[in-house]
Amino acid sequence: MSQLDTVLSRIDQNMEQSIERWFDLLKIPSISTDSAYKEDCLKAADLLKNTLQDIGFETTVRPTSGLPMVVGHHVPDTLPADAPHVLFYGHYDVQPADPLEKWNTPPFEPARITGEDGIEKVYARGAADDKGQLMTFVEASRAWIETAGHLPVKVTILFEGEEESGSPSLDAFLEENTAELSRDVALICDTNMWDKDTPAITTRLRGIMHDEITVIGPSRDLHSGLYGGVARNPIRVLSRIVASLHDDEGTILVPGFYDGVADVTSETRAQWEELNFPMVEFLGDVGLSLPAGEAAYPALEQLWARPTCDANGIIAGYTDEGTKTVIPSRATVKLSFRLVPGQDPLAIRENLREFVRAQLPDDCDVEFMNFGAGTALEVPLDDPHLQKAATAMGAEFGKDTVLMGNGASIPIATSFKEQLGMNSLLIGFGLNDDSIHSPNEKYNMPSFVHGTRSWARILEALAV
Amino acid sequence: MSQLDTVLSRIDQNMEQSIERWFDLLKIPSISTDSAYKEDCLKAADLLKNTLQDIGFETTVRPTSGLPMVVGHHVPDTLPADAPHVLFYGHYDVQPADPLEKWNTPPFEPARITGEDGIEKVYARGAADDKGQLMTFVEASRAWIETAGHLPVKVTILFEGEEESGSPSLDAFLEENTAELSRDVALICDTNMWDKDTPAITTRLRGIMHDEITVIGPSRDLHSGLYGGVARNPIRVLSRIVASLHDDEGTILVPGFYDGVADVTSETRAQWEELNFPMVEFLGDVGLSLPAGEAAYPALEQLWARPTCDANGIIAGYTDEGTKTVIPSRATVKLSFRLVPGQDPLAIRENLREFVRAQLPDDCDVEFMNFGAGTALEVPLDDPHLQKAATAMGAEFGKDTVLMGNGASIPIATSFKEQLGMNSLLIGFGLNDDSIHSPNEKYNMPSFVHGTRSWARILEALAV
Repeated sequence: MSQLDTVLSRIDQNMEQSIERWFDLLKIPSISTDSAYKEDCLKAADLLKNTLQDIGFETTVRPTSGLPMVVGHHVPDTLPADAPHVLFYGHYDVQPADPLEKWNTPPFEPARITGEDGIEKVYARGAADDKGQLMTFVEASRAWIETAGHLPVKVTILFEGEEESGSPSLDAFLEENTAELSRDVALICDTNMWDKDTPAITTRLRGIMHDEITVIGPSRDLHSGLYGGVARNPIRVLSRIVASLHDDEGTILVPGFYDGVADVTSETRAQWEELNFPMVEFLGDVGLSLPAGEAAYPALEQLWARPTCDANGIIAGYTDEGTKTVIPSRATVKLSFRLVPGQDPLAIRENLREFVRAQLPDDCDVEFMNFGAGTALEVPLDDPHLQKAATAMGAEFGKDTVLMGNGASIPIATSFKEQLGMNSLLIGFGLNDDSIHSPNEKYNMPSFVHGTRSWARILEALAV
Repeated sequence: MSQLDTVLSRIDQNMEQSIERWFDLLKIPSISTDSAYKEDCLKAADLLKNTLQDIGFETTVRPTSGLPMVVGHHVPDTLPADAPHVLFYGHYDVQPADPLEKWNTPPFEPARITGEDGIEKVYARGAADDKGQLMTFVEASRAWIETAGHLPVKVTILFEGEEESGSPSLDAFLEENTAELSRDVALICDTNMWDKDTPAITTRLRGIMHDEITVIGPSRDLHSGLYGGVARNPIRVLSRIVASLHDDEGTILVPGFYDGVADVTSETRAQWEELNFPMVEFLGDVGLSLPAGEAAYPALEQLWARPTCDANGIIAGYTDEGTKTVIPSRATVKLSFRLVPGQDPLAIRENLREFVRAQLPDDCDVEFMNFGAGTALEVPLDDPHLQKAATAMGAEFGKDTVLMGNGASIPIATSFKEQLGMNSLLIGFGLNDDSIHSPNEKYNMPSFVHGTRSWARILEALAV
């Protein structure tokens, strides 16, 4: 039996205990975006610190101006000094769980439920994003150390607690700890498989720019009977602004928005066409049927290669049961823009704000809130670690690993590249129907099992 | 000393006790639009029943399918059988108090504060609308009965508990109790003075139509990275619909909306111009400067004589602190339309819904919620009671009573006309800056004192 076989066999034997440890983490409501959950975030950080220490990582909880980082090092004497050293990144914070009433099981009481497809799933906020994903690496590391005494490569682990809040403390932390964190390559476990049977490494990610816009009209809420008709209604002003962001063809109208945006190459376009992405099912699964992006581009390019503008939330006036005949004083929208390589998030923020101000009636004000930004990223296909990891995952799943794009944003990969000079392998075992950021988030049990086994294989592959 | 002078003097002497009774009513959070406050609404109804019984009204709390009515009768044997019989109407429910953080004092703990203008004010939700107003009539009645043994006219009092919720039970109640409630004239105390020194009777009221629109896109909330660009965002769809309700000149674009709308006569226009309505101050008081209605009409006509469309609330997606990269499943707006004589609220509702459906992408759904409607009203200037009341109020204030328009809607006046064949005198002592339906609602102490004294005079005037 090879060393790897022994490790894989130990993973299988101890799977129930691994699941229990994963569930202990899921039970903590570590919602970073809501300060009411700060203590829970600290609890999750402590749990991970203790977990890593138990396995044999030298681990510290490191303060930041926000929520702390957990940093663990495994640099065994038994490995040669020039053995590869990888950095693994995950995040212990989760999205808010609202709307609570739409959950079938309580979001912080993980539930094992076997679906009609015969596949067991774990339902909880963070089941996939990112607690399930990061625990696959932790449990693979545990099995290696418990059987071989150490990992086949040197490993540093970085767990962040503010990923779902735009990572406000991350860049400063990387800056202050560059020597400690700059390694040969980063492993980031926050992405999906191509489908439930096919592993994938994501090599193309969109960037993001968040901005919140509040239009202020009257100095106080007004009675719509006493003032209606003559008083400016900020909901009307804001709706016109939001409606003005796109034309009828889905083109985004913020001036300069497409500066630097290139069409994908004809080779990439041909390769993506071959994937036969099931757009009808992809949209049909969520109750839609018509691609709603730029009409001039194929649906998969709308998703992977084109920048977007979405309103993520809007609120003004009376929003409870029934009616209230009020003209509100203010109206707020939260916008996020998904960006592609070539776009400058900060220039786009300035252009957006100018675009909004230009539409403002003279007796209205506007307030903006900056909730972070990150540029888009393409991971180079000639990185020497990429093929090793792809082959190792292919062996686990018995299928070639797909190198794919992703519409989401993982700004940490950009920070690793720009601040630490390190490429990232974006490897994850989530699925499109995991409902991350939605009620009833889940992670398939096969994702957890094969994910853990995949990491055991990847760690060995990277040692060679 | 005339009988009236004795009554007025008793009002003045017992003013502190009157204020205490008013405050007892203000302390009950009788918010009809939120079912969590049902018990409080019942408590307010009981308090008023006991109050009227104490004064000598034969009073009952009458169940409806919603919140109960309080009905009191004062028909003394000492009055001739053909003495006038008036119906007084008020409502014991109040608007919700949110946003709570904008109140300077707790909304259900009435606070007496003398402002920089030297005028004492009472701050509380309902201080003006309608608890302060209705208590002026109750306390005037009390003083009459305590001094003269009975009122100078027969009086029936009707207190409703669902006025702020669109009065869903009112029409059925009037229908079932027509004989009991049809009187010579109705007195409705829910309107304003012309200014703090000048009494007014409102003879022209706008109607209203409420509708709530929910656009439904994806079947669940989506991650804007995984789906953004290709998935329909209901906030974008709804914003376009809200933005499409008006053109750049403020004209409302719902088809057929202006059917039946007539311009005011040149006489009325001339009379209104003479009023020298201080539009700059009216808007300036609430932080605005530009009339935002139909550009083709003078500002006072936008307010009193033109129909409107306002969004009173809008909500979708993530609206708490920070960000959440979600494409929400649904987006909701609450609309209300102020209507003028000639407009048919139900036809407008149907046209609105058709207008919305026509703009809906094929893979979106829409849900509508009907929150009531009422036609506009003009009270005839030749009603014989009108001049008597105007003269009585003029004597109290030492200034002629203004016969004015009002942009608000008081559907009860329409119901009294259509169901009970009775004209209404809309007499009230509120002021434009009372902030009804807003935080820090208040009623000036002089409004309460002169209001109570005015009713004492009006009751005597109507007897002749």
